Amino acid sequence: MGRASGRAVTISAIAAEAGVSVPTVSRVLNGRSDVAPGTRERVEQLLRHHEYRRPSRRQGHACLVDLVFDDLDSPWALEIVRGVEEVAHSAGAGTVVSAIHSRASDRRQWLDNLRVRATDAVILVLTDLDGELGAELERLDVPAVAIDPAGVPALDLPTIGVTNWSGAVSATEHLIGLGHRRIAHISGRPGLWCTRSRLDGYRAGLGSAGLEPAAELVVEGDFGYESGYRAGVHLLGLAEPPTAVFAANDQMAMGVYEALRRSGRRVPDDVSVVGFDDLPSSRWASPPMTTVRQPLTELGRMASQMALRMVGGESIEGPRVELATELVVRESTAAR
Amino acid sequence: MGRASGRAVTISAIAAEAGVSVPTVSRVLNGRSDVAPGTRERVEQLLRHHEYRRPSRRQGHACLVDLVFDDLDSPWALEIVRGVEEVAHSAGAGTVVSAIHSRASDRRQWLDNLRVRATDAVILVLTDLDGELGAELERLDVPAVAIDPAGVPALDLPTIGVTNWSGAVSATEHLIGLGHRRIAHISGRPGLWCTRSRLDGYRAGLGSAGLEPAAELVVEGDFGYESGYRAGVHLLGLAEPPTAVFAANDQMAMGVYEALRRSGRRVPDDVSVVGFDDLPSSRWASPPMTTVRQPLTELGRMASQMALRMVGGESIEGPRVELATELVVRESTAAR
Repeated sequence: MGRASGRAVTISAIAAEAGVSVPTVSRVLNGRSDVAPGTRERVEQLLRHHEYRRPSRRQGHACLVDLVFDDLDSPWALEIVRGVEEVAHSAGAGTVVSAIHSRASDRRQWLDNLRVRATDAVILVLTDLDGELGAELERLDVPAVAIDPAGVPALDLPTIGVTNWSGAVSATEHLIGLGHRRIAHISGRPGLWCTRSRLDGYRAGLGSAGLEPAAELVVEGDFGYESGYRAGVHLLGLAEPPTAVFAANDQMAMGVYEALRRSGRRVPDDVSVVGFDDLPSSRWASPPMTTVRQPLTELGRMASQMALRMVGGESIEGPRVELATELVVRESTAAR
Repeated sequence: MGRASGRAVTISAIAAEAGVSVPTVSRVLNGRSDVAPGTRERVEQLLRHHEYRRPSRRQGHACLVDLVFDDLDSPWALEIVRGVEEVAHSAGAGTVVSAIHSRASDRRQWLDNLRVRATDAVILVLTDLDGELGAELERLDVPAVAIDPAGVPALDLPTIGVTNWSGAVSATEHLIGLGHRRIAHISGRPGLWCTRSRLDGYRAGLGSAGLEPAAELVVEGDFGYESGYRAGVHLLGLAEPPTAVFAANDQMAMGVYEALRRSGRRVPDDVSVVGFDDLPSSRWASPPMTTVRQPLTELGRMASQMALRMVGGESIEGPRVELATELVVRESTAAR
């Protein structure tokens, strides 16, 4: 990522140009509410125009790393926070965690906050990495890394993802190896690359065993528990139900557990279930879940290391690294 | 919390007194490794002696709030982060998340990082709130709030907890109302106040119905899944097993689910199970878990609000607030 050359515009210069006092500019910078809207807008325009930044505290050493998510409501967010924090903390840097709820206003607020706190590097865990965001970060002169378990081809940023396709192949091959032939797939939210690559991996796994996936055995979910439950109910209602279900994430697999329980069936005696993620709670599921492990904490650690190296002036090679997923066999799958 | 009067010692004065250059002092402040150990120690002693602080960016407005946990490996940490972040983000402040792993070295490092980043307020989620920590925070002149779902009577800090005892009473009364008489309790980690208050609540609930808790029905756990599983196996092996189990947290309750499944029993048909916490994953358990909800996100929100008000110069009344817990009845409990 290119770095804008830092221009040394001062708060006094901004104040003079805006025709306001220096404290007023400070109040705008600090996000205080006691500034008239028109004044705030004029000052903010000038701050942006002159690419004003707080004097940085950095000297090749990061003090703050910003880690931003769409939402903090999935347990996997915590796994990533843990990895980022572990590396940043040892290096003396703080990990600032934010959620922007896929809303433009929250993103704007976050970018403003970023400028005020003079953060040293940014780690993005967002499904929507558009060019405008890249341009904003470049303007702020903040190096950025993206963690992308979803597999979005995006900005020209160093990106760390996971091998979604291979993970799905290994889940499917595991079920085939146990003798299953009618294997269903509950896919993730439509339009995401991880959804597509897991579905493709499922198909490839079947294909390599000479099996053709029946159209009725692929049901669309949205990564939510409820969608997994509904898909499970639907699959069990088929004239010839599947003997195994591979869900594109653990939460949907939990929904399948519940659909089976309510219909009086047992996991894995009646139907085998495989998830994707390996959330901590999947180890505690009853029975403990066979699932494809995403190395989420490792993703966080690596992103943190890359971000700190970039702050130190190193350039990071290559636009994308993929960490391996791994099938973890527990007790939700059994021989047919 | 009292505030030390800020003395305006400069980096140059520290450098002169230590007999080193200003950049060397900066390197120590920034936690860089390229400083000789003896020099680092001398400089750090002087920084502490003179109570040096980075010039604050605050003007009655928080830029950074530090949120520190013992560990980030429990899903409930994310619930708290979400609440703190929500309030801080809207106020233009960043939420710095750290884990100190109950280790003195990590705590030292965290306090050093805190000083370097000139954080504006601190929210503690630590089981060990000793006087030394309080003194350090006072020296750094950083207002602090404690979130304490565990119920530790601790420092003279504004503290937000939950009603552990009442929650345990309501869980026990719920089971009694369903006709259960042999109700077991799996207690939490010994020595914690929340463990004690939940156990007392269980006993009080039984007592109010004229029941005497059988000693064999109280089994010690440690809040971990495995300890819940082992306690479950033990209870099912009794000559007269319980018909209901109240575990002191959801993770141990999940262990009881698994003990029941492995012994060929069903929840709630054979044994009713109640947890404590209401983690998101407990809604997805199969069957969905009846549990005592701790308002974790709300704890985070309130702590964040209090911290921001303290930065703004308000003093916070009262040493401790307790938010209500609430029994959430789902499908893991049934009439006897």
